[in-house]
Amino acid sequence: MIVKIARYIDAEGRRGIGRMVEPDRAVPLNGDLFGPHVFDGPAVKIARFLAPVDPPNVLAIGLNYRKHAEEGGARSLPTEPLLFIKATTSVIGPGDEIILPHSAPCEVDYEAELVIVIGRRAKDVSERDALDCVLGFTCGNDVSARDCQKTRDKQWARGKSFDTFCPLGPVIVTPDEIDAQNVGIRSILNGRTMQDSNTSDMIFPIRTLVNFLSHQLTLLPGTVILTGTPEGVGFARKPPVYLKSGDVIEIEIDGIGRLRNEVRADSGVR
Amino acid sequence: MIVKIARYIDAEGRRGIGRMVEPDRAVPLNGDLFGPHVFDGPAVKIARFLAPVDPPNVLAIGLNYRKHAEEGGARSLPTEPLLFIKATTSVIGPGDEIILPHSAPCEVDYEAELVIVIGRRAKDVSERDALDCVLGFTCGNDVSARDCQKTRDKQWARGKSFDTFCPLGPVIVTPDEIDAQNVGIRSILNGRTMQDSNTSDMIFPIRTLVNFLSHQLTLLPGTVILTGTPEGVGFARKPPVYLKSGDVIEIEIDGIGRLRNEVRADSGVR
Repeated sequence: MIVKIARYIDAEGRRGIGRMVEPDRAVPLNGDLFGPHVFDGPAVKIARFLAPVDPPNVLAIGLNYRKHAEEGGARSLPTEPLLFIKATTSVIGPGDEIILPHSAPCEVDYEAELVIVIGRRAKDVSERDALDCVLGFTCGNDVSARDCQKTRDKQWARGKSFDTFCPLGPVIVTPDEIDAQNVGIRSILNGRTMQDSNTSDMIFPIRTLVNFLSHQLTLLPGTVILTGTPEGVGFARKPPVYLKSGDVIEIEIDGIGRLRNEVRADSGVR
Repeated sequence: MIVKIARYIDAEGRRGIGRMVEPDRAVPLNGDLFGPHVFDGPAVKIARFLAPVDPPNVLAIGLNYRKHAEEGGARSLPTEPLLFIKATTSVIGPGDEIILPHSAPCEVDYEAELVIVIGRRAKDVSERDALDCVLGFTCGNDVSARDCQKTRDKQWARGKSFDTFCPLGPVIVTPDEIDAQNVGIRSILNGRTMQDSNTSDMIFPIRTLVNFLSHQLTLLPGTVILTGTPEGVGFARKPPVYLKSGDVIEIEIDGIGRLRNEVRADSGVR
């Protein structure tokens, strides 16, 4: 049974979580996605996809693909996973707009990432048991204001935490449905492929990341882990490519789907 | 009317939020702390204090006291607030134990901080309106594994996000009850005063921090902002002082109270 899980607003305007049965239809969740549950009842028509999860923490790993670490000028590869944290308020869903922030609009970059969604509380789990704690995988875009990240703050938190800087979706695919450590991952900017790699190129694989992070902090259900981005990001290009109003940026992972977001300047209207 | 708000477990084992009327008694909240509410009914006896809030994001500011920036070797003072983020899972309450993590037990340090608790959604607020978005203030300890922070990761997220690394409490004091920009702030380790300063020494004051941060990201109700620590932290002492099992570390802010936590090694027992 194919299990792709979506959060959505249905044709009647109701929010829901469901198991996809057609590209725009889902069978609703009955129960708690992170506890006892079934998917049953008549399928509903999806009007709009939401971020597939509302995470208690957004954890992310820097420099986890060899060629990306090199293009960024790292003098050596990391010897343990490099954690950073994005604000939970940065999460948006498929189709939502990425807003170029007033305070740092000029060097906003994309990063295609495989995202782990934690399914059950994980503390000090072994590599062997790590995947048992995983609900599934989705696509993420670790949007980053490079000026804040690299020059102004050096700490990465602000440059990666502006509102709208963490698109997630469109669906969560369960581990039995995907060989997540060996799938193609791409970013596509206005139809042009900018990153084109495979998750097999990760320095620290999925099991290691869950194992390692669970030894630093408790991974609660719904926690997302952005697992790093491959080479081809905007700042490392010559000349650099940054997102501008009107751009369409898509993150595609084979077996999961395509996460599409438009970019626009901050109008100041709230 | 003195408004000190606590979260607690009462003598009957029930969790609650209330307005303190005696050192160990509170009148329960009726309604939503961040929406329409009153405090009414008979006072209950508090058996144990909890962290006064369960934040959607834990925001923190680095190097926000002049002398602390200097003791840390900063070559110049920050020209804008330096944001970092602690995992929400690091929050503990008064009396809870700070656990020295297995992966970084040797250079764990304390940092006394005034903590802003956001009361209503804030996006792009002016300095003038900033305090209207503040529910109140509490004490915080920005516990930090200096080896992770300064040598191993350089990014601060991990070293400041281990489980138990964000004690908060004991109560939230509303802005009309405290001149939060001019109160004594201290840390006390095993009875010895280690930090002894005043919040008037902040480089970026409270209004500026709320104003600045609200222009970077949306501050949701319950968000906490740790506003930086004064001089006297452990790593800058000669010889350095780090927390060890059995230590008692207290954070005291005049007009709020004293946040007390014991330290112990990680037993590995979950």
